[in-house]
Amino acid sequence: MGKTDWKAEAKALKKELKSLTKDVEVAQPVAKKAKVVSPLAPARFPDLPQIRGVEFAAVEAGVRYQNRKDVMLVRLAPGTAMAGVFTRSTTRSACVRDCQAKITARVPRGAGAAIVVNSGNSNAFTGAKGDASVAAITEGVAQALGLPASRVFSSSTGVIGEPLPHERILAALPALQAGLQQDAIAMAAQAMMTTDTFPKGAAATIAGEGGDIHIAGIAKGSGMIAPDMATMLVYIFTDAKISAATLQKILSRNTDATFNSITVDSDTSTSDTLLLAATGQSDAAPVAGATLKAFEAALAGVMLDLAHQVIRDGEGATKFVEVNVTGAASDTDAHKVALAIANSPLVKTAIAGQDPNWGRIVAAIGKSGAAAERDRLTIKFGDILVARKGWRNPKYREEDGANYMLHPELVISVDMGLGRGKRKVWTCDLTNRYIEINADYRS
Amino acid sequence: MGKTDWKAEAKALKKELKSLTKDVEVAQPVAKKAKVVSPLAPARFPDLPQIRGVEFAAVEAGVRYQNRKDVMLVRLAPGTAMAGVFTRSTTRSACVRDCQAKITARVPRGAGAAIVVNSGNSNAFTGAKGDASVAAITEGVAQALGLPASRVFSSSTGVIGEPLPHERILAALPALQAGLQQDAIAMAAQAMMTTDTFPKGAAATIAGEGGDIHIAGIAKGSGMIAPDMATMLVYIFTDAKISAATLQKILSRNTDATFNSITVDSDTSTSDTLLLAATGQSDAAPVAGATLKAFEAALAGVMLDLAHQVIRDGEGATKFVEVNVTGAASDTDAHKVALAIANSPLVKTAIAGQDPNWGRIVAAIGKSGAAAERDRLTIKFGDILVARKGWRNPKYREEDGANYMLHPELVISVDMGLGRGKRKVWTCDLTNRYIEINADYRS
Repeated sequence: MGKTDWKAEAKALKKELKSLTKDVEVAQPVAKKAKVVSPLAPARFPDLPQIRGVEFAAVEAGVRYQNRKDVMLVRLAPGTAMAGVFTRSTTRSACVRDCQAKITARVPRGAGAAIVVNSGNSNAFTGAKGDASVAAITEGVAQALGLPASRVFSSSTGVIGEPLPHERILAALPALQAGLQQDAIAMAAQAMMTTDTFPKGAAATIAGEGGDIHIAGIAKGSGMIAPDMATMLVYIFTDAKISAATLQKILSRNTDATFNSITVDSDTSTSDTLLLAATGQSDAAPVAGATLKAFEAALAGVMLDLAHQVIRDGEGATKFVEVNVTGAASDTDAHKVALAIANSPLVKTAIAGQDPNWGRIVAAIGKSGAAAERDRLTIKFGDILVARKGWRNPKYREEDGANYMLHPELVISVDMGLGRGKRKVWTCDLTNRYIEINADYRS
Repeated sequence: MGKTDWKAEAKALKKELKSLTKDVEVAQPVAKKAKVVSPLAPARFPDLPQIRGVEFAAVEAGVRYQNRKDVMLVRLAPGTAMAGVFTRSTTRSACVRDCQAKITARVPRGAGAAIVVNSGNSNAFTGAKGDASVAAITEGVAQALGLPASRVFSSSTGVIGEPLPHERILAALPALQAGLQQDAIAMAAQAMMTTDTFPKGAAATIAGEGGDIHIAGIAKGSGMIAPDMATMLVYIFTDAKISAATLQKILSRNTDATFNSITVDSDTSTSDTLLLAATGQSDAAPVAGATLKAFEAALAGVMLDLAHQVIRDGEGATKFVEVNVTGAASDTDAHKVALAIANSPLVKTAIAGQDPNWGRIVAAIGKSGAAAERDRLTIKFGDILVARKGWRNPKYREEDGANYMLHPELVISVDMGLGRGKRKVWTCDLTNRYIEINADYRS
């Protein structure tokens, strides 16, 4: 030792590295240019029921993208009840802050409402100018549709820190207003896409008292939580007759197990917005009792479906992974463990490599901050018992694990053996494609 | 809308994806086979001073690797004071738990000590068998060197969940004992490497009262914290005359700003171990007063140097990044913000792509959980003022940021504008190479 010429060796190896980097780079432009839909995408956009009292329009406003629709407008009939859940980021965008203020504000009697969304620019970290853009857009829509500005909700998704050319959105308002129609929800879903590879929609219908109640939702996002061009926006519509207070209560209590239980890359967006609008125009009686329970279950189903679709469109994803934690000391602990596993780059790269590397799951449990005892842990891949009582299951065969990892949809189960806390979280794998998408220069 | 045949399109695109995945895969075997040293590696292993009372040996024991040294032994002279800091993972390995118990145990008067480390197998999550392996190894070393077993510290690094073939280590003990020599610290550093691309060493010498005091340290790790084959182990030796209590105090209080302020991938190891041994064999008087201050500063310097080398060997790293947070409401808040930025996959991939994407830094600040006010934030790349007062600096030019990002060493500064809390954290970028290393099948 000490006699090796490290400098010479390092130099030679640097040269070698440079040459092989070139080899790797050969493959990248091919991948970048291709228009690729996620291999986990559903076969097609679902048929969504029309919701009475909800109309959609979308146009090409040229906010940032060219030759595609990039602004969508939703008009909601008088008497619509609204509820919302928003990102807790301290650097959340001007439109998120505006929505938050409006969702809790007093509603003028019988007022309608509107939602206006643009893609290509998130209007986040744009200072006082950003606030002015939100005011201009929401006041413009209010005037066009004859609504109080306090009932116009706006979202922006796309690049952070660039001034939003709101005049382009204002210029598109007449065309948007003229284009409003009940059966255009798919077009609205497309207009808000950024790095999404497919539009996301989900629906449910339940039997109410005296008629059916319909729910239809759309979402965009290919990170939970990936602020630059990949923020999550969700809009759900229903014709149920229900108060804003009840609507908010059931929306809030179902968010944790759905949209707060998915993660692509652990990055939290500055724009995440979830709005739920109930027009009350169903033939059914106001929801209450058993109908309310059925409505809540159906709504939770739509929320979970949309959340799963966001994961299926996770940047570079090739695997859809459920992490199912049971037996934790508390639900909070179960959530911590599930997220630690789902966010671990080492677990996610092992899944990308189809490697049944359960040691990395053990390590993720250890760092989660939740109570854990080695000798009480059980780990499963699907139905395969991998480890229990702090040790590998003697009957576990590595090739069984390896074969299981070939599936595009995986379930990793962890039982902590401590209590009754449980939680499911959904994630995807971490692939070269994720790096390519996100290391690619913005312009 | 609704008329597109999504199924047919998805099918065609799936086919396209498959073909281009193959294109990308062409480049990977080349990269995998090459023996690559990190481009951020120092030119050579430094000349480390010999420390009186410390001897090293390393041998090929064939624990997992073939044709390379994989077990190292350190013998520490009678009277050596020991201090240690360990991972807080709840699934930490049997040898970590054993070290923790021994470091706080009562020391037999004038006892020597030993450290034995193997690479290739971490003996983590190996149940009661793992505990038995630790006992067998430490008792074997104790017997061979005539030490109490309570003074033999062991570490294991490598794959998790596989039984450690400790009999191979026991069989190597005679050769290890015979090979002990003062000038073999570099060989010891090499024997504990796993996915490391270079051995890591650092040293300092200060003038004590009546003679020099020397410090020499070695480390392994290419994730802070990357449990499978990339755990961080650090051993630092000094000839200072100093009590174990003082040693522990200064080791502990300097860990936060050094080894706890680096992150490759946010994953916490089950094996992280930092041991500091003081033999007291320097000619200098016992350290106290001004010498103690100088000693602590020199020790902190060695710790920071080793910590930086771990980042320079971060899996797939091509950029060495300092994240410097000032003006936070507290030091704790500053640490939260710095780690949120340093761990953000979106920030790290932007750096890999040499993209001055400061919007992602804003998003990371927002999700950190620390107090933040948009209009008080200042962001700099090196000396370039990028954003201030909640808005992009009007004089900032994107090409200046882009040019800055071409450097291999970067400083990202964030001033929160709220208080006096500050903290520095070091990290590297997230590249395709990281995915390749970690998605690669273990065997």
